[in-house]
Amino acid sequence: MKKFLFSGSFDPITNGHMDIIERAALLCDKLVVGIITNPSKHCMFSTDEKIEMIRKVTAHIENVEVDNFGGLLADYVRDKQFDGVVRGLRTSHDFDYEMQMANINARLYDKFESIFLMARPELTYVSSSNIKEIILFKGNVEGLVPDVVLEEIKKKTQK
Amino acid sequence: MKKFLFSGSFDPITNGHMDIIERAALLCDKLVVGIITNPSKHCMFSTDEKIEMIRKVTAHIENVEVDNFGGLLADYVRDKQFDGVVRGLRTSHDFDYEMQMANINARLYDKFESIFLMARPELTYVSSSNIKEIILFKGNVEGLVPDVVLEEIKKKTQK
Amino acid sequence: MKKFLFSGSFDPITNGHMDIIERAALLCDKLVVGIITNPSKHCMFSTDEKIEMIRKVTAHIENVEVDNFGGLLADYVRDKQFDGVVRGLRTSHDFDYEMQMANINARLYDKFESIFLMARPELTYVSSSNIKEIILFKGNVEGLVPDVVLEEIKKKTQK
Amino acid sequence: MKKFLFSGSFDPITNGHMDIIERAALLCDKLVVGIITNPSKHCMFSTDEKIEMIRKVTAHIENVEVDNFGGLLADYVRDKQFDGVVRGLRTSHDFDYEMQMANINARLYDKFESIFLMARPELTYVSSSNIKEIILFKGNVEGLVPDVVLEEIKKKTQK
Amino acid sequence: MKKFLFSGSFDPITNGHMDIIERAALLCDKLVVGIITNPSKHCMFSTDEKIEMIRKVTAHIENVEVDNFGGLLADYVRDKQFDGVVRGLRTSHDFDYEMQMANINARLYDKFESIFLMARPELTYVSSSNIKEIILFKGNVEGLVPDVVLEEIKKKTQK
Amino acid sequence: MKKFLFSGSFDPITNGHMDIIERAALLCDKLVVGIITNPSKHCMFSTDEKIEMIRKVTAHIENVEVDNFGGLLADYVRDKQFDGVVRGLRTSHDFDYEMQMANINARLYDKFESIFLMARPELTYVSSSNIKEIILFKGNVEGLVPDVVLEEIKKKTQK
Repeated sequence: MKKFLFSGSFDPITNGHMDIIERAALLCDKLVVGIITNPSKHCMFSTDEKIEMIRKVTAHIENVEVDNFGGLLADYVRDKQFDGVVRGLRTSHDFDYEMQMANINARLYDKFESIFLMARPELTYVSSSNIKEIILFKGNVEGLVPDVVLEEIKKKTQK
Repeated sequence: MKKFLFSGSFDPITNGHMDIIERAALLCDKLVVGIITNPSKHCMFSTDEKIEMIRKVTAHIENVEVDNFGGLLADYVRDKQFDGVVRGLRTSHDFDYEMQMANINARLYDKFESIFLMARPELTYVSSSNIKEIILFKGNVEGLVPDVVLEEIKKKTQK
Repeated sequence: MKKFLFSGSFDPITNGHMDIIERAALLCDKLVVGIITNPSKHCMFSTDEKIEMIRKVTAHIENVEVDNFGGLLADYVRDKQFDGVVRGLRTSHDFDYEMQMANINARLYDKFESIFLMARPELTYVSSSNIKEIILFKGNVEGLVPDVVLEEIKKKTQK
Repeated sequence: MKKFLFSGSFDPITNGHMDIIERAALLCDKLVVGIITNPSKHCMFSTDEKIEMIRKVTAHIENVEVDNFGGLLADYVRDKQFDGVVRGLRTSHDFDYEMQMANINARLYDKFESIFLMARPELTYVSSSNIKEIILFKGNVEGLVPDVVLEEIKKKTQK
Repeated sequence: MKKFLFSGSFDPITNGHMDIIERAALLCDKLVVGIITNPSKHCMFSTDEKIEMIRKVTAHIENVEVDNFGGLLADYVRDKQFDGVVRGLRTSHDFDYEMQMANINARLYDKFESIFLMARPELTYVSSSNIKEIILFKGNVEGLVPDVVLEEIKKKTQK
Repeated sequence: MKKFLFSGSFDPITNGHMDIIERAALLCDKLVVGIITNPSKHCMFSTDEKIEMIRKVTAHIENVEVDNFGGLLADYVRDKQFDGVVRGLRTSHDFDYEMQMANINARLYDKFESIFLMARPELTYVSSSNIKEIILFKGNVEGLVPDVVLEEIKKKTQK
């Protein structure tokens, strides 16, 4: 049984993430969406809110589970014995960063295998930070995030 | 009549900006230099100071106007009905970022057209942030910014 | 009156080219699609065939004209007094090449202005050479080239 | 059961390929090493020689099989119902090319999924064409190709 | 006599730095390792601690000296009359940044010559900031920094 | 005594090469300009013509010598005991290629040290192949090559 991890801050989960999740789930027996909890990083959504949203938007994919973890990614991957860690690639700038991270993670845990999927072309510009900047200036992010997330964003920003 | 926008923080305007403005002005009927006002971003010069400096250094180009705006760039472009938004490209790292921004802006306003001009080779290293770092360490920025700007920088830093 | 050029081999014209032509035509008063004729380069279509195809697929855009030229691009741009030469950018690898070409052309003719538009994300992978490779292996290029071109390709390859 | 493909010319198979094969085999239930046969491309080794060499050097990996195919990669992937096609990434230049190919393949067959593994740092410079250029100038490729391949190269070049 | 400079924050010095120092020392008569002191930047180690560590780890290289400086790099290079300033290159993203810095430094001091060495492949992912992030999450940096530095890190983090 | 090599096809030598030669000569005690002779590559100028031209254009630099060699670069560097091999970097695409070559050369000869200088911005677009393409279309290459070379090109092309 092959078990892959797709980890990130997911603040919030976007349609770019959704695309990678749906495609990665077809490549393995179980895919864990692992939310990184970093107390020193300020997030729009709490870990509990993220878990709930991701559970809802991945409910239709049978072999997806949601989890969260702190500390070093390499330690989490070793503890849970993941066969691979899925990452999306959008630009050649992403590539440089990801190559360094893949190498350093393989150094920290020698069975750490990074697996890259290319973002679909029409989603290469979608990122959580772009989403948050558009929201800040009251722009419309419909179609860039799942509807469930859109609702949660509206609740947050109307407060 | 074709109306283009060249937007930026212009903190301060550099000879790199001047080169793009002079070249872009030849490609359209009216070029607006649009200063982005972002209250949460600390600037060396106030918007009023920027407007005055840019007016002076573009006085010799007939079809250039100076304006300023807040909020989402895409909203400003829609409101003012610009035919194109001019951007300078200096490095392949710029390219990756600009391709994402061009796509997200086209998503926010479907008639948003980004137009890229390549920085002249001898100006690829000139940026407002480089200028400010040189000033911080009391280096000489003569020839990297218009003389008018050089005078204003001297006033600021002598205080 | 601003007159732009969009030059290329167009062997054959693709939907990637069509996208740039339609967008560039909105930025100027007249857009010339200029077919480069290079006797030493073997093409799938003759210059006459290319002219006819491009005329048909651009018939709906009022301010587009079709032309062809040999020799140095910079000489053609000087002779015809184009205000700008439009180029599509797809990848950061394109960027490096195009920056060198823009600089060398500006060297050969000091009023040569290169104008870059970013390929729409879903068209970044469409190129004439990709099209020809797919055809070679009898793959389907529907939706990647205009229908008129699809018909001409079928005629060529059925012979 | 997840079945992945690792395709290439393998002329000859290198230690860079071997690294990807060994790592990819851990990510799926069956990995097929698929040799592309292209009659119009001149190769150092025949398809039969390649098959024999790859069989020998992958004999220790249980779930690896060797195959060969002609025509469009997307057609082969559809016919054999591969869940994913594994590719090695070495440089950001590779990335640009691979992103285009991944997109065009997904266009030709909508279930075509490209999976990228980063080359191990000490193998980023190993490629079949580099190997052949070193051989041409009588340089030593020991340690860059499996020993079995080294023997075959010696036989070829001593003739 | 040719005198080169290798400057940086060295917070802390890594095996990536060590590799560049050992190789650069072979290319010149004297190599100065110059620690940048920037009061506004918070560092893990004080300048005195850095000097002591770098002296120890470079004690075996005869023509290496350790120094520190504040202010503009170009001013320091002019004052000390360095023939060249050595920099390590790891990724194409590094390249873009370094090209800009090389140009701006040549502008500030016309005899400023930047010399680039490629990081050894297995060290491309080693940087002071990566080291510090691994330490923060209690990961193991053995083999990524000299043993002397490892001891100092342990002292700091055990407090 | 430090001895560096600057190798290339020099078909013909350009002002881009001249810039690297003049700068590299300041960094070492002796700089050898080494012409690669490759019988299977068709050149505009013969090796003898190249030697004569390079001798003339480097006559003013005391510590420069001209040489030529065949076979593997790494073998030549080992035989002549060069301390470093100088390369010019122009674009991030250059970087990827050069990083691979630096690594493979270090593999072939463990004391092979590649030294990179950044092309001056106004020369990033000058290459021998660009020069030849401009000549082919009867464009003007004045200022892109030394005057001596310009004369020789005129002789060749007037025949």
